Amino acid sequence: MAFDTTSAGKPEPPSSPARPTLRRLVLDVLKPHEPNILAIAKALAVLPGVDGVDITVYEIDAKVENVKITLEGTDLEFARIRNVIHDMGGAIHSIDKVSTGRVIVEEAPTPQD
Amino acid sequence: MAFDTTSAGKPEPPSSPARPTLRRLVLDVLKPHEPNILAIAKALAVLPGVDGVDITVYEIDAKVENVKITLEGTDLEFARIRNVIHDMGGAIHSIDKVSTGRVIVEEAPTPQD
Amino acid sequence: MAFDTTSAGKPEPPSSPARPTLRRLVLDVLKPHEPNILAIAKALAVLPGVDGVDITVYEIDAKVENVKITLEGTDLEFARIRNVIHDMGGAIHSIDKVSTGRVIVEEAPTPQD
Amino acid sequence: MAFDTTSAGKPEPPSSPARPTLRRLVLDVLKPHEPNILAIAKALAVLPGVDGVDITVYEIDAKVENVKITLEGTDLEFARIRNVIHDMGGAIHSIDKVSTGRVIVEEAPTPQD
Amino acid sequence: MAFDTTSAGKPEPPSSPARPTLRRLVLDVLKPHEPNILAIAKALAVLPGVDGVDITVYEIDAKVENVKITLEGTDLEFARIRNVIHDMGGAIHSIDKVSTGRVIVEEAPTPQD
Amino acid sequence: MAFDTTSAGKPEPPSSPARPTLRRLVLDVLKPHEPNILAIAKALAVLPGVDGVDITVYEIDAKVENVKITLEGTDLEFARIRNVIHDMGGAIHSIDKVSTGRVIVEEAPTPQD
Amino acid sequence: MAFDTTSAGKPEPPSSPARPTLRRLVLDVLKPHEPNILAIAKALAVLPGVDGVDITVYEIDAKVENVKITLEGTDLEFARIRNVIHDMGGAIHSIDKVSTGRVIVEEAPTPQD
Repeated sequence: MAFDTTSAGKPEPPSSPARPTLRRLVLDVLKPHEPNILAIAKALAVLPGVDGVDITVYEIDAKVENVKITLEGTDLEFARIRNVIHDMGGAIHSIDKVSTGRVIVEEAPTPQD
Repeated sequence: MAFDTTSAGKPEPPSSPARPTLRRLVLDVLKPHEPNILAIAKALAVLPGVDGVDITVYEIDAKVENVKITLEGTDLEFARIRNVIHDMGGAIHSIDKVSTGRVIVEEAPTPQD
Repeated sequence: MAFDTTSAGKPEPPSSPARPTLRRLVLDVLKPHEPNILAIAKALAVLPGVDGVDITVYEIDAKVENVKITLEGTDLEFARIRNVIHDMGGAIHSIDKVSTGRVIVEEAPTPQD
Repeated sequence: MAFDTTSAGKPEPPSSPARPTLRRLVLDVLKPHEPNILAIAKALAVLPGVDGVDITVYEIDAKVENVKITLEGTDLEFARIRNVIHDMGGAIHSIDKVSTGRVIVEEAPTPQD
Repeated sequence: MAFDTTSAGKPEPPSSPARPTLRRLVLDVLKPHEPNILAIAKALAVLPGVDGVDITVYEIDAKVENVKITLEGTDLEFARIRNVIHDMGGAIHSIDKVSTGRVIVEEAPTPQD
Repeated sequence: MAFDTTSAGKPEPPSSPARPTLRRLVLDVLKPHEPNILAIAKALAVLPGVDGVDITVYEIDAKVENVKITLEGTDLEFARIRNVIHDMGGAIHSIDKVSTGRVIVEEAPTPQD
Repeated sequence: MAFDTTSAGKPEPPSSPARPTLRRLVLDVLKPHEPNILAIAKALAVLPGVDGVDITVYEIDAKVENVKITLEGTDLEFARIRNVIHDMGGAIHSIDKVSTGRVIVEEAPTPQD
């Protein structure tokens, strides 16, 4: 599918940040019951660049629970976040959503959703 | 699933709080009919760091009722909250959601919900 | 389920009120057709600490009707509210929701809803 | 179901109005096709204490129509409203919702809805 | 169903307008394909007291189409609106909603909806 | 269905514009894959009176695609918009919604929707 | 379907931009698991004219994943965006939505949706 738009020779607008920043991160995590989501959320909240953390449980089994972790901040650092989760016994099942850039952009609804 | 992002040698942004604060807590609680949710909500509302408490009943049986307790504040203390609930005859069935950090972050919707 | 968070020796943040205040109350009430919901809503609206009252009818039978009463205020007094409803022929079937504290907190949605 | 809260000896907070005011009224009305909802809405809009009137038709039969009338104002007077509707051939089938007090309070959603 | 509220001898609050104004009008209109909704919307938009017009097509047949016309303004004049629609070949099937008074009041949701 | 409202002899309120302006236009358009919606949206965005253009694809077949085009502006000119779409190979299947006047009015929801 | 509106001889309103700008772009992209959406979102966020990027995963298979990429900015450049995605192993399955012009216009809901 050919696209007709070219951008050669266009002056660089100043709006994009020099260094890309991760502003929001949504993770699907499998974790044992202990330590609980409160301990993990507190550990994540003190990481550099984190403004806030939401952890929501959506499934609890005998030994493990599936949780959804939403982090927002000015400059989230995925490696540190991943390490905290691993160190506390959790496994990141998938990265479900990321938002990067100067502002947090919401996913635009489309008929394909 | 290997992730390629490293954060070595990055200056610590000032935004994250030194001490992680619990800003919102959602509990699924099983309780006897007495004392009622009004008494429990009042007892929780005077705990340090609590701005407001919502208790919603979602199921009533002959002897017990299932309630959902939502607390918001600047610095919720889970141990005190748990003690109040236990002292008033309730049992925390599960912690369903927690929000920590400088701001209360809402869970971002994803197709996996 | 053990929780690892302790709050020993933490300074009392000033945000919680000395006296717990009831800010919102939702009642499921069974009442005869007379007096009507207008009369009851007016009687409740003049009680101390009441800012506003909403009464919504959700079921009407031959002799009785089920209504949902939502009150909001700075300092609702349940005993007075209960007395007004009883004096006007109503019976409180259940307290479905209460909000206490400095601010009215909304119930946070969770997958368990 | 005994409630443990008493309000004896508590100073009267100033927030509640001396005279209870009806701020919003929702009526289910059966009416003939003539006069139409425009005429009725105009007649209701000039009543004392009325800020605005919404009349929505939800069912039309051969001779009659069911309409839902929502009125908002600073001090609605039900007797006058009822008289206007009766004088224009309508019959109030039921009062479905009332809001009284200093502010219009919205019905709080509960699982029982 | 007797109502206990009387309004005899109450001073007239100043809030209601001397002359009732039609602020919003929703019409269900059957029209031929020509002239199209653009022409009709333009013709309605220049009528006195009209701030804006929305025409939405919800059904198209071989020869006619059903459209929903929403008009808002400070002082809509139904007779002129009806005349424009008739002059352009349309027939008002029904008046589905009207809003009158100082402000446009939204229909309050009730369980009966 | 006779309507009793007449507007004879009423002074013209100043609020309606002398010339009717098209403020929003929603088109259902059938187009070939090339040129793509990006090219068409750019071509429409530079037309006089256009503030913004949204093109959303809701169906893709082997050779053609159905798209919904929403334009908003201070004074949209349908003839120019139609010409751009035709010149780029598209066919306007229908005009689904138009908004005219001083302000963009939203369609008011009714039970008939 | 003939349209009666002509725009000949009308002065050019100043509101439309000389050069059409792409303000929002929604892409359906098929990609291998590596590099992950975090790497792609960071790479897109530093492109000229990009304010923010949202990447949401809606389907994960053994070897590939379907993601929805939403970009917003002052002047998005599709060619650069397409090149970044291709260079990182992704294939643009379709452009689902574009917004161009001075402002980002939301798709107006219609019964045909």
